[in-house]
Amino acid sequence: MKIRKAVITAAGPSQRTLPLQTLVDRDGTEKSALTIIVEEAQSAGVEEVCIVVHAGDEEAYAARMGVTELPVTYVVQEKPRGYGHALVCAEDFVGDEPFLHLVSDHLYVGHGITSCAEELVKRAQAEECAVSAVHATREHMLPYYGAVGGQRVAGQRHLYTIQTVREKPTPTDAEQDLIVPGLRAGHYLCFYGMHVLTPAVMELLAAEASGEGSEAIDLSNALARLAGKERYLALEVAGSRYNIGIKYGLLHAQFALALSGVDREAVLTQLLELLAQRQRLVDDDPSPD
Amino acid sequence: MKIRKAVITAAGPSQRTLPLQTLVDRDGTEKSALTIIVEEAQSAGVEEVCIVVHAGDEEAYAARMGVTELPVTYVVQEKPRGYGHALVCAEDFVGDEPFLHLVSDHLYVGHGITSCAEELVKRAQAEECAVSAVHATREHMLPYYGAVGGQRVAGQRHLYTIQTVREKPTPTDAEQDLIVPGLRAGHYLCFYGMHVLTPAVMELLAAEASGEGSEAIDLSNALARLAGKERYLALEVAGSRYNIGIKYGLLHAQFALALSGVDREAVLTQLLELLAQRQRLVDDDPSPD
Repeated sequence: MKIRKAVITAAGPSQRTLPLQTLVDRDGTEKSALTIIVEEAQSAGVEEVCIVVHAGDEEAYAARMGVTELPVTYVVQEKPRGYGHALVCAEDFVGDEPFLHLVSDHLYVGHGITSCAEELVKRAQAEECAVSAVHATREHMLPYYGAVGGQRVAGQRHLYTIQTVREKPTPTDAEQDLIVPGLRAGHYLCFYGMHVLTPAVMELLAAEASGEGSEAIDLSNALARLAGKERYLALEVAGSRYNIGIKYGLLHAQFALALSGVDREAVLTQLLELLAQRQRLVDDDPSPD
Repeated sequence: MKIRKAVITAAGPSQRTLPLQTLVDRDGTEKSALTIIVEEAQSAGVEEVCIVVHAGDEEAYAARMGVTELPVTYVVQEKPRGYGHALVCAEDFVGDEPFLHLVSDHLYVGHGITSCAEELVKRAQAEECAVSAVHATREHMLPYYGAVGGQRVAGQRHLYTIQTVREKPTPTDAEQDLIVPGLRAGHYLCFYGMHVLTPAVMELLAAEASGEGSEAIDLSNALARLAGKERYLALEVAGSRYNIGIKYGLLHAQFALALSGVDREAVLTQLLELLAQRQRLVDDDPSPD
């Protein structure tokens, strides 16, 4: 199994401008968030990218794409029918191949030299099945994520067989269905915004989307059914995710990138200087220096 | 003299996407940089705003404008003829009134409860002449700014009569023409990106722009001539400017806004946690916690 294609979903009404935000990447280069996400996919060996966008956003996205050798296809989600529907808009692009899926409102910082996407794709290629990246997440964060229940794969420290998938479970639901033996108490395996998915997921989503209805189509439902159909794993990747769609999310992502990158010392020094300067203003009178 | 109108220039090719960047303002609300700049003008009592944009950017800007009670007029700079030319594109908008001018690649944090724009406009209205906000800036920063030479107004701590204006002077030029008695050694009064200008400035710019040529038209030239024509002052405002167009400029601006705003403690705590977390990863093994 070889993962050659990636699908990035960016059509959510509240997320349309996020990929256009400017950040300095770990290499010290200014890029759009979109470019950083595409490079995350590229680091995993992907050869083609499809970005699912809101109608009218293709041009602005293309303008902020930066230099990439990857061919990029834009597909428009014509109706606002949710995350699963956005993904199935890329059905023709992926064809009958497994693919990497990334969301556009998260950035990732791998803890080692391997990127999170690379770690995930390598494991999926080795296991030859769908694998969702997950992160052990404290219970109070459950309202923000999809979460999975399952069993640790014997002899594999960070790999789990997924039996159950629930979107934004309540703590009670999670206690009943999602406790994973071996995790710290009060922690659950929540989606990390990064998956290797098989054509079966597209089939499940397409079946749901084919009706005339306008209801939102969720990815977690399809993944729950996938777990009953195919071998489907969860991998705790060695990295941190930063949701750039929440308040101060861009600040945190930028700070995390800088702390892990070539400009670490310079950025820390500058921020401390700024802090000292503001503190002087609080301590002294408010006239300029 | 009453300042009712503001002109914001945002047409520079390298600056087109800056006003679309998302920041959390001091009030804890997520806004585009554009909205923060417009609110800076609004804080000074301005009643109408004109934004000079690159062709094709009106729609994206209007979409990120947020809620404002101010009427906003967009004017397109049709030719890339520089900063002064961008400003004169707003000639019809300002008519024969003095106006506040702000650039779109700087954000401001006032050191007291008064915004920088409010301080500037109040002073200009009291003095009934053009006033440029300036900041005492170290010599090595001269390549980035326009700078002024002149004399302190007797009895006024932060107010100067402008005699000379030079765009990005060399240190030698600055030593010859721009030393201002009373400033710290090695410091010059550099433009802060915020001016109250009179109709005479528009006339000077329009005269330059009227030719068939395609040369760039600079604002500093016109301001140098203004100093020979009218009373023209510089005011050291009590605030800090953050250039969001430079590397890590958005990070610094966001950090400065947060340090001066309602979320100060929360943001400091989160950044320290992130720093501690990254440090643990450096100290320990690279597996996820």
